[in-house]
Amino acid sequence: MSQWRQDPLTGRWVVIAEGRHRRPDEFAPAVAGPAAGETCPFCPGHEHMTTPEITARGRRERAPAGGPGWRMRVFGNMFPAVRPGDGGPLGEAPWPARPGRGHHEVVVFTPEHGGGLHTLADDDLAELLLLLRERMADLAACPEVAHVLPFFNQGGEAGATLAHPHGQIIATPLVPQLVATKLERMRQWRGEGGGCLLCDLLAREEATGERIVAAGDGALVLAPWASRFPCELLAAPRRHVDGPVAGSPEDCTAVARVLGPALRALAAVRPEPPLNMILHAGPAGGPEDEFHWHLEILPRWTRLAGFEAGSGFAINSLAPETAARRLREEVARCAS
Amino acid sequence: MSQWRQDPLTGRWVVIAEGRHRRPDEFAPAVAGPAAGETCPFCPGHEHMTTPEITARGRRERAPAGGPGWRMRVFGNMFPAVRPGDGGPLGEAPWPARPGRGHHEVVVFTPEHGGGLHTLADDDLAELLLLLRERMADLAACPEVAHVLPFFNQGGEAGATLAHPHGQIIATPLVPQLVATKLERMRQWRGEGGGCLLCDLLAREEATGERIVAAGDGALVLAPWASRFPCELLAAPRRHVDGPVAGSPEDCTAVARVLGPALRALAAVRPEPPLNMILHAGPAGGPEDEFHWHLEILPRWTRLAGFEAGSGFAINSLAPETAARRLREEVARCAS
Repeated sequence: MSQWRQDPLTGRWVVIAEGRHRRPDEFAPAVAGPAAGETCPFCPGHEHMTTPEITARGRRERAPAGGPGWRMRVFGNMFPAVRPGDGGPLGEAPWPARPGRGHHEVVVFTPEHGGGLHTLADDDLAELLLLLRERMADLAACPEVAHVLPFFNQGGEAGATLAHPHGQIIATPLVPQLVATKLERMRQWRGEGGGCLLCDLLAREEATGERIVAAGDGALVLAPWASRFPCELLAAPRRHVDGPVAGSPEDCTAVARVLGPALRALAAVRPEPPLNMILHAGPAGGPEDEFHWHLEILPRWTRLAGFEAGSGFAINSLAPETAARRLREEVARCAS
Repeated sequence: MSQWRQDPLTGRWVVIAEGRHRRPDEFAPAVAGPAAGETCPFCPGHEHMTTPEITARGRRERAPAGGPGWRMRVFGNMFPAVRPGDGGPLGEAPWPARPGRGHHEVVVFTPEHGGGLHTLADDDLAELLLLLRERMADLAACPEVAHVLPFFNQGGEAGATLAHPHGQIIATPLVPQLVATKLERMRQWRGEGGGCLLCDLLAREEATGERIVAAGDGALVLAPWASRFPCELLAAPRRHVDGPVAGSPEDCTAVARVLGPALRALAAVRPEPPLNMILHAGPAGGPEDEFHWHLEILPRWTRLAGFEAGSGFAINSLAPETAARRLREEVARCAS
């Protein structure tokens, strides 16, 4: 079984999941996944190659569950980094540990072997966000879950090991440090007399306009002030909805309507963009889970190197204002 | 000029260095550097292609400064992310900023175009650490410098854009979050009745022995308890020396004597290993700069993906105990 371990020098938690990849040589680099048609476990007709289906979308009423005919499909990861169950602390200072608890699911969001998030229609993006919302609610209700993180690795540069477009959801017994940091910054802002930090940010960004990429009635996409990656994006609903899931159905639809054009603009600027997309909502349960859910889109055609790994700083040679201007042009061109 | 910017949601500082790479299209991915002999600016005889030399090692006594004949050579980065100078805060909440101040140097540590840190003899590694130590002392003495970070990107997967082996040094007007976190954890450990956290860790690691890769009279190399990367290593002198530079000449030599065998073992397990190496010492100046300098070696044949980017957690499918066992075998084989 895997193990959560805390680094004594940094406090960082790491999952040590030995044997997760059953490769002949654990020391060798990972190999590329199969092509379509061959043995891609995520293509329609290959449902028997995955763990049992948890839920699906788009299968016609009388079609058998577990077979083809779906538009989206969720199942457990074949090589989960973490598994459900309980168990308290294992190690002790300076080597704290916990059993490798959690949930690890796969979300195949299209039957097509090619393309990615940027080739989804806005309605499909909305359906995907609603599907994530449903899974987040289910997982957040599990007693051992402290937080639920949906994320997408698109392209080898972004860490994808299978080419068929898909996302993953990892529910963890610990609140991720990044989410805890955002919660802390939000509390601090409120403590200094502000409202919700993200609500306030969205309003101020829209007032200046220079980093806005796409604006809709219910949601915004912008290039963040301190973007770490060229063309980095943040998408959020205007309405404040806190809690551990991706808002309401209306928010999901509103976000999809601006996210779709923004992702297509990104693909116009950089074809087949390698990227990570992350959905951040609040921790599961507790009265102090005030948050404002949002998506981070991190293009990965530049590399995180030693300076980033050694400092936590980043160097970005494309200003977010330049990126936003160019992406706005593409959003306008695609819409016309 | 570049700009330091703080992300309102995470507090993370980022250098926005637009125009750093003078590429025809800022949106395109970076291109690979030149081969040896062609126009590699780091090969001997091409000294005129770099900014003026800051210091060098190994040039014969009567050889002209700035020409060939060196074993190691330091000069300013041609496209610095940060530049010397002063200047206070620029922006205000929620968008804090500062001028892009700092120092950005390049350290070419071999005249050979191929190879890397793992092909250096132990004596050359010692000379490299001593050279870094000298540059760190110089830079830490600059009034605007809060911290000095030497780092190495080896191989394209690790973010290298030029193939000729080299490192970089970035001196920053802010203490990097990772260094601040380590300082805080060290203070906490002392507050709870411990000694230096790293001194204590080294002693306990040696007592169990299962994560030790190479042990010398004056230094240790180990696979950290919560390694994020397969075959991740930490190298440190046994003797506690705090401050903003890499210890004393004796410590540098002691570390080189265990680091060399460990790097060669890594290259035996994974030829031409892509890796980042980071040297962490304390902040520049101030009475509270108690630290214990060390090197982190981060092999980069696995990718940081969405889970890591969205959580700050990591998943590592090779236990450090397994890595250490295998690397110890290679260290023993190379020594025999």
